Amino acid sequence: MGLKVRWIRTVGYDTHNQRLADDFGNVRNPGTDIEVVSLKNDSVTHHLEYQSYEGLVTADIVRVVRDAAVQQFDAVVVGCFYDPGLMEAREISGDTVVVAPCQASVELAMSLGNKFSIIIGRQKWADRMESRIREYGFHHGLASFRELGLGVPDFHKDRAETERRMIAAARKAIQEDRAEVIILGCTLEFGFYRKLQEIVGVPVIDCALAAFKRAEALADLKRRFGWKPSRVWGCEPPPEDAEIHAWNVFAPSLVPIGGRVWNPWEQ
Amino acid sequence: MGLKVRWIRTVGYDTHNQRLADDFGNVRNPGTDIEVVSLKNDSVTHHLEYQSYEGLVTADIVRVVRDAAVQQFDAVVVGCFYDPGLMEAREISGDTVVVAPCQASVELAMSLGNKFSIIIGRQKWADRMESRIREYGFHHGLASFRELGLGVPDFHKDRAETERRMIAAARKAIQEDRAEVIILGCTLEFGFYRKLQEIVGVPVIDCALAAFKRAEALADLKRRFGWKPSRVWGCEPPPEDAEIHAWNVFAPSLVPIGGRVWNPWEQ
Amino acid sequence: MGLKVRWIRTVGYDTHNQRLADDFGNVRNPGTDIEVVSLKNDSVTHHLEYQSYEGLVTADIVRVVRDAAVQQFDAVVVGCFYDPGLMEAREISGDTVVVAPCQASVELAMSLGNKFSIIIGRQKWADRMESRIREYGFHHGLASFRELGLGVPDFHKDRAETERRMIAAARKAIQEDRAEVIILGCTLEFGFYRKLQEIVGVPVIDCALAAFKRAEALADLKRRFGWKPSRVWGCEPPPEDAEIHAWNVFAPSLVPIGGRVWNPWEQ
Amino acid sequence: MGLKVRWIRTVGYDTHNQRLADDFGNVRNPGTDIEVVSLKNDSVTHHLEYQSYEGLVTADIVRVVRDAAVQQFDAVVVGCFYDPGLMEAREISGDTVVVAPCQASVELAMSLGNKFSIIIGRQKWADRMESRIREYGFHHGLASFRELGLGVPDFHKDRAETERRMIAAARKAIQEDRAEVIILGCTLEFGFYRKLQEIVGVPVIDCALAAFKRAEALADLKRRFGWKPSRVWGCEPPPEDAEIHAWNVFAPSLVPIGGRVWNPWEQ
Amino acid sequence: MGLKVRWIRTVGYDTHNQRLADDFGNVRNPGTDIEVVSLKNDSVTHHLEYQSYEGLVTADIVRVVRDAAVQQFDAVVVGCFYDPGLMEAREISGDTVVVAPCQASVELAMSLGNKFSIIIGRQKWADRMESRIREYGFHHGLASFRELGLGVPDFHKDRAETERRMIAAARKAIQEDRAEVIILGCTLEFGFYRKLQEIVGVPVIDCALAAFKRAEALADLKRRFGWKPSRVWGCEPPPEDAEIHAWNVFAPSLVPIGGRVWNPWEQ
Amino acid sequence: MGLKVRWIRTVGYDTHNQRLADDFGNVRNPGTDIEVVSLKNDSVTHHLEYQSYEGLVTADIVRVVRDAAVQQFDAVVVGCFYDPGLMEAREISGDTVVVAPCQASVELAMSLGNKFSIIIGRQKWADRMESRIREYGFHHGLASFRELGLGVPDFHKDRAETERRMIAAARKAIQEDRAEVIILGCTLEFGFYRKLQEIVGVPVIDCALAAFKRAEALADLKRRFGWKPSRVWGCEPPPEDAEIHAWNVFAPSLVPIGGRVWNPWEQ
Repeated sequence: MGLKVRWIRTVGYDTHNQRLADDFGNVRNPGTDIEVVSLKNDSVTHHLEYQSYEGLVTADIVRVVRDAAVQQFDAVVVGCFYDPGLMEAREISGDTVVVAPCQASVELAMSLGNKFSIIIGRQKWADRMESRIREYGFHHGLASFRELGLGVPDFHKDRAETERRMIAAARKAIQEDRAEVIILGCTLEFGFYRKLQEIVGVPVIDCALAAFKRAEALADLKRRFGWKPSRVWGCEPPPEDAEIHAWNVFAPSLVPIGGRVWNPWEQ
Repeated sequence: MGLKVRWIRTVGYDTHNQRLADDFGNVRNPGTDIEVVSLKNDSVTHHLEYQSYEGLVTADIVRVVRDAAVQQFDAVVVGCFYDPGLMEAREISGDTVVVAPCQASVELAMSLGNKFSIIIGRQKWADRMESRIREYGFHHGLASFRELGLGVPDFHKDRAETERRMIAAARKAIQEDRAEVIILGCTLEFGFYRKLQEIVGVPVIDCALAAFKRAEALADLKRRFGWKPSRVWGCEPPPEDAEIHAWNVFAPSLVPIGGRVWNPWEQ
Repeated sequence: MGLKVRWIRTVGYDTHNQRLADDFGNVRNPGTDIEVVSLKNDSVTHHLEYQSYEGLVTADIVRVVRDAAVQQFDAVVVGCFYDPGLMEAREISGDTVVVAPCQASVELAMSLGNKFSIIIGRQKWADRMESRIREYGFHHGLASFRELGLGVPDFHKDRAETERRMIAAARKAIQEDRAEVIILGCTLEFGFYRKLQEIVGVPVIDCALAAFKRAEALADLKRRFGWKPSRVWGCEPPPEDAEIHAWNVFAPSLVPIGGRVWNPWEQ
Repeated sequence: MGLKVRWIRTVGYDTHNQRLADDFGNVRNPGTDIEVVSLKNDSVTHHLEYQSYEGLVTADIVRVVRDAAVQQFDAVVVGCFYDPGLMEAREISGDTVVVAPCQASVELAMSLGNKFSIIIGRQKWADRMESRIREYGFHHGLASFRELGLGVPDFHKDRAETERRMIAAARKAIQEDRAEVIILGCTLEFGFYRKLQEIVGVPVIDCALAAFKRAEALADLKRRFGWKPSRVWGCEPPPEDAEIHAWNVFAPSLVPIGGRVWNPWEQ
Repeated sequence: MGLKVRWIRTVGYDTHNQRLADDFGNVRNPGTDIEVVSLKNDSVTHHLEYQSYEGLVTADIVRVVRDAAVQQFDAVVVGCFYDPGLMEAREISGDTVVVAPCQASVELAMSLGNKFSIIIGRQKWADRMESRIREYGFHHGLASFRELGLGVPDFHKDRAETERRMIAAARKAIQEDRAEVIILGCTLEFGFYRKLQEIVGVPVIDCALAAFKRAEALADLKRRFGWKPSRVWGCEPPPEDAEIHAWNVFAPSLVPIGGRVWNPWEQ
Repeated sequence: MGLKVRWIRTVGYDTHNQRLADDFGNVRNPGTDIEVVSLKNDSVTHHLEYQSYEGLVTADIVRVVRDAAVQQFDAVVVGCFYDPGLMEAREISGDTVVVAPCQASVELAMSLGNKFSIIIGRQKWADRMESRIREYGFHHGLASFRELGLGVPDFHKDRAETERRMIAAARKAIQEDRAEVIILGCTLEFGFYRKLQEIVGVPVIDCALAAFKRAEALADLKRRFGWKPSRVWGCEPPPEDAEIHAWNVFAPSLVPIGGRVWNPWEQ
């Protein structure tokens, strides 16, 4: 049976889901099953540019990851560059590996160079991401953040303008901040990396593709070698019977996991 | 008008709320208004020993803090030693200062000594707390964690036994790990600090009292000096009209903030 | 009995003492007793811009803190942003809590934002302060130092000019260095914070007020909860009889503690 | 055309090469071409337990990686847990991605847990590895080293005894050092991970398998997305004509790359 | 003219001065002039085991270093392993290089091995020294502190017993803490290093000898190459005329530098 | 018998060797024997600007250091500012102390000031050096790198132009990066430091002279006090008989240590 990977769009609407599913489908390994789901509570927010918005969806992320564990997905991606709920979700993911774009992209960048810069929409995002990178231990590799002056919903409004700004930002990062690798710091900055990397001449990492492929790779390791998440000490999950079931902790009736699922290749 | 401080019990039941409110009432400054609230979704969990549980309540914490901002509280405490949702809540707290027990206790400990140990219920908690302390920059002061072998709900089942274990754990922390200050690493480890500190001879910080008084102090600074939270760069909140209202982000109708309120002194 | 707080002006003259005492008096909690003292050896220096000057007054700071312990002050502030003699004084402060402006201000800044800049008189000061901040563990929050091009004695010569420079420096810190909070890095930069924070729109911390209120708060914790300084391991003081008395270590006859005392509210 | 991955045994003899090639062959993705080569200078050393030995083979590692670049391998692994010559080789690897076991294993461990311990042959190795882990930024995740009391050539002399010691070491790491993940810190500790992880109940990472699969995954990313090593700033290679050719820098006539090649699946 | 080196005994009595002067005389380079001075205020303290004592003598250390600068010494050593007043003294040392035992010993240890342990008299000292070592950036090399259970005045009361304890402490440091180098962490632990290092088999650094020879070497560099202390930015000294002379800052009439001087070779 | 110090030019040609030998001869202590050797494999490379080149010569550096140990040199310098092979060579240096220019220069800089900048030939070098400095623990002192736009072979082509660029770079480092000390970051930047330091007014460290004199000083400590390299744990060398001799590890017949030796003073 093929690997099963779930991508969680951490927002409550389905724009771009088909596009992402197509992108992942085009680059998956043979046999990999992909599911792209959104969260249910549509009205809450259209993006996660704010940490408070991130906090609003953490519970749903945890629940969707729990559901992925129950449904025996091999890996799941929390699809936002803030890596929202990553540590919380890993705890109850059972045998499912949990991946997130910031960690996956930075690990990759550190294999391709020594210093990376992150292209962000607005300066607002920098502090949250810097805190994540410091937490992961990669702070010594961070050359800079460079902002586009665009919000998440704006990236695809005028794609030529977005590209123009990306080129300018990446060039500044390389020339002024000595970046050796560029990371596009939002899963919605998709569709730009290839042309950009041809123009600026250094690797430009699309964080969504990086995260998806890392998830697929870790899913494969889990299947082959049994390298699933640890479940001791800090990784210990709540007791299944005494708490999770008894208290109905992840009960879908409370906040049912939502999802618009695409899996065109297995239909 | 007196200072208004809200304490958020980050669970969905009200056991201990009256006790905490009484404790805070006994140590408040004259005129301080105290409100102890629990979260609404009672059934979810009885404690936050797990990071996944923490993730489940983050949204409600954010909402209750937003509500505190709207109601013009001066300060609010996220009442759990994991400091759950602290950064998320600070972003949308408006003019309300947000405080949390781990940060407040460790800051205090670093003013009273150079090395501190944290008495925890179960070893499970250590990793999460260590990560927080590293994030805050106090890792050089952390001597050790010492566990009691008790879950959160157990602290007050057999108080003599809890006390006996606390004495043993604190002594080991002092003698073997060279701790100079002891922190009780759970807001429900209340009622023990005074006797314990008499017995072991070093300061023993009750994290609930430390956090409450820090909140009251910061509330006072805000009133006197206008030192309210910054709202630029990483502290920038979502736009009030274009997003919060337009999208009804913190709408109580979605997940109404709950609360059982005690404020016996102002009745 | 009210709390007793001593503020140590770390210089040998009394200009500004009345002003500081008035400022603290205006913001104290009811019942708090304030004493503002200078050091005795008037001729030594007019400011502590230099580390060598700091070294020259450390002994007197230690003695005045020892005296505060003997006189049962609840808290004492070493009133200079270099936090001179802080660790040395804490050791022999007995039950008296010792506070200093840099530590108090930065702790506060980290509760109001993620990145802070410090407005200093001259670039000379930056290195000393950076070293302190690194020692405390807050280096990740330091956005920058911005200098005014003024020495300590110059701040109040032409207050309009000082203010003009402060506005320019704070704006640069916010716009270019991404500071979210501004700290005025000298206890003599008093009288400017309020207007400045209205103009630049982020919290501007007056380090003298921050330190005084932190001292008052810690003094209160000590009284209420018995949280006085630890006295074990690195916090162990010299033996009282075998050394302090036998050797007459802090003998006022050698270098008597000085002081011009103002406490107008309790007269 | 399938991916081409070269594994460099960093010693001058071919024992175990067939075994490794078989192991990798059993876990490769369809179409991946594997080559396991040893270095030429057979007599130098039988293992790399010593840093001086590591130094002796760095030049050959660099040359074999250069050769891999010329032969258009997609990825190459420097097959020793000291990650010898990793940074040196990355510089001249052209479009070939360079991977090493320590970095690959620790990255993986940090996705499966928060704290890892490394099972080493002799205590001698610990310092070198700790230095590498600090360099990569993962020091906060290192729980401990636990030694087996065996040299590299001894692991497979009495496999039952080796296994017995591994179980004891891993249990100590988990119970006493709070490790959540175990890493086998030598590429010759192969053949043990699966049974060990069943017995001790946490993920046990075979560093050779982890590195091979990471190389295969990065090779795939390179092919699909063009994410090849950066070649600017610190990643800039020597000029091809003016130096490499002019000076015959990597001339095989000097120290020809050696190699006993197995690629049984493509014969 | 020969190099001139002053050693400052940071206490107010002259026991051991002759012994130290003899020791240094025996190991000086030809032509080096040595002066061993004590501080004047004899009664203050017999040792610097406490940070408060350190604070009491900082002013005198600064003055004696200023005097050394005026008298054109090439180098001066602040002779206590807490490195008391080092940064304060460096600022006004003019062209005189200032050295201290902790920094000199740890630099040396890091050239002879990767991990060092420090043998201290009492556990009390550890925290102060750890703070210094963290400040210098060598924390990654610190294996442990091991205490003898002896105060500074006790080292030479029963030398056989001191030696016995040193051997036991050093062995524990090597066997249990994996120390590769031993540092004797007090200038009065003289006379023991040679036999100890023969017995335990790793380098045992006498911190007084290490500091004296480092001072002599830096003095030599200053003479030969003009590498004297920087005097810009954080190294900027007070203005000579406008402050030092005008305010009589280092006036010997206030606290005259004291000293019992030995220089037997030049008599 | 005088001290014996070997300087290893880490390239395969002898230009500049006589000049360096003369320079060292002019500043040696009486009786010190100096030997300047190059590596044998002349054709490999003309400089070590690239990490891959560094990797190519590591084996030879290790062999030449081993030979120095056999020939009972007191100290040896690996003469390149990347400190190539330093850790590898230290392991098998026997009783010979191993020194390198980057470590020696930065240690020195940290005794003369708080912040240093390094003048490099090309920006390419910065990343490698920053990694070294972070490894040594001195990252907090690094103000900046400033490049000359010159390769290693260019420094002495037009000395007036080199000097002009050095002055400009050093001034920028001081004025814009707040450097207090300047380090010339290549052993071939010789002959410039003295005039440069007169012009820019802060200490300018010639890294070759700094390393040579540090080697001489450590050699002296070894002779006088027996402070030779540790040989336990991470410092443990390969077994002499069972491996080094049995396997002929450092056999000169394989890659004979090369060298053109100058020692004009002892002829």
